Amino acid sequence: MNYPNGLKKQYKNSRTYSNRGMSLEQDLNDTNNYYLKWNLAVVYKKPTPITINKVNYKSRKDAVITEAHFITPSTTDYNGIYKGKYIDFEAKETKSLTSFSLNNIHKHQIQHLEKIYLHGGIGFIVVRFTRLNMTYLLFIEELLDFLKNNKRASIPKSYFDEKGYIIKEGLNPRLDYLKIIEKKEFDYEKDF
Amino acid sequence: MNYPNGLKKQYKNSRTYSNRGMSLEQDLNDTNNYYLKWNLAVVYKKPTPITINKVNYKSRKDAVITEAHFITPSTTDYNGIYKGKYIDFEAKETKSLTSFSLNNIHKHQIQHLEKIYLHGGIGFIVVRFTRLNMTYLLFIEELLDFLKNNKRASIPKSYFDEKGYIIKEGLNPRLDYLKIIEKKEFDYEKDF
Repeated sequence: MNYPNGLKKQYKNSRTYSNRGMSLEQDLNDTNNYYLKWNLAVVYKKPTPITINKVNYKSRKDAVITEAHFITPSTTDYNGIYKGKYIDFEAKETKSLTSFSLNNIHKHQIQHLEKIYLHGGIGFIVVRFTRLNMTYLLFIEELLDFLKNNKRASIPKSYFDEKGYIIKEGLNPRLDYLKIIEKKEFDYEKDF
Repeated sequence: MNYPNGLKKQYKNSRTYSNRGMSLEQDLNDTNNYYLKWNLAVVYKKPTPITINKVNYKSRKDAVITEAHFITPSTTDYNGIYKGKYIDFEAKETKSLTSFSLNNIHKHQIQHLEKIYLHGGIGFIVVRFTRLNMTYLLFIEELLDFLKNNKRASIPKSYFDEKGYIIKEGLNPRLDYLKIIEKKEFDYEKDF
C-alpha cells in the first residue's frame, strides 16, 4: 500500500515490536484503548476480583483498604461488544516452547466461555508463547473440541497452528484480534 | 396458572417480598444467579475496581493485600449476554421520594452506556426508590433524551413513570428485568 508521501508503510505487522518486553495484558489493554478511541469496539479488562475485609475510612473520599484477599474469578478477564456481538475472552502467557498447560485456565472459566458460545456470543482464549513471540487466538469451539477428544493436560502448540489464528503484532493496535473476529463472524465473502 | 397439585401460584410479583431489607445489589445478584442456573442469560456484576499497592505474600497461595485504594469505575457494574445480545447496566438506590439525583452516576458511566447503545447493545439503568419500594428500568436512549432536553441535576420520578418500566419484585427471580428486555428487543408482536 502506497501512502500519499510516497513512503510505504513498513510498520504494520512487523515483528520488530514483539521484543519490547510488553506483557500480553499491556498489549491487550493498549489494543482495547485503540478500539475505544477509534470507536471500533468497547472491550474492557475486568477488575481483579477480591474480597475486602478491612477498610480504613480516613475521610469519606479517602478510604484505604487495609486487608483484602484475591478470590478465584468466576468469569474471564475481558469482555465487551463488537458490532452488536458480545465478546468474551481470557488471555494467558506461557514460557513453554511446545505446549500450553491447561492448568493456566480455571475449569469454570472454560465453562463460562462455553455458556457464552451457547448464548450466541463469541468466546475465545488468547495465548502468547512468550519465548517464541507468538500470540494465538483459539475460539472456544476448538478448545472444547480439543478437551472432548484429548485427555492431555496441555494443548500442543501444533493445535494452535492448526485450529487457532496467529494475532500478528503491530504498532497500533498492537494485537488486532478483531480482524480475526471480523473474518470469522462478518466476512461472508470468504465462503464464496 | 394452576399447578398440578391444585394450588395456585400466589407468590409471583407479590409486593410482599419488597420489605425484606435486601439491597438492590443483592436482589440483582440473586436474579443473575437465577438466570444463570436456568440458562436464560449470563450476567455478572464486575468486581469493585481498586489499585493494589501492597501485597504480603505469606505463601504462594495465601497472598494478603495490605494496602489498596478504590478507583473511579470506567464502566458500569453489570454486563453480560442475553439471546446473543450484549447487555450493560448500572444500578442505584435512592432514598428520595420524588427524584433520582444524577450525582449518583458518573458522567463516563453514562458515556459508556451511550457507546454500548451505538454499538448495538442494550444499555440501561436500574433505579430503586427504596422508601417507595419501587424499582425502575430506564433505557439509555431515554436517559440521554432527558439529559438533552433538561438542565436539571436530577430525574423526577414522574419521568421514570412515563419513560421507564417498573421491575416487579418476585420471589424467584426477585427482579425479572429480562422480561422488559424481552418485550423491547424480541417481542415483535407488540407492534401489531
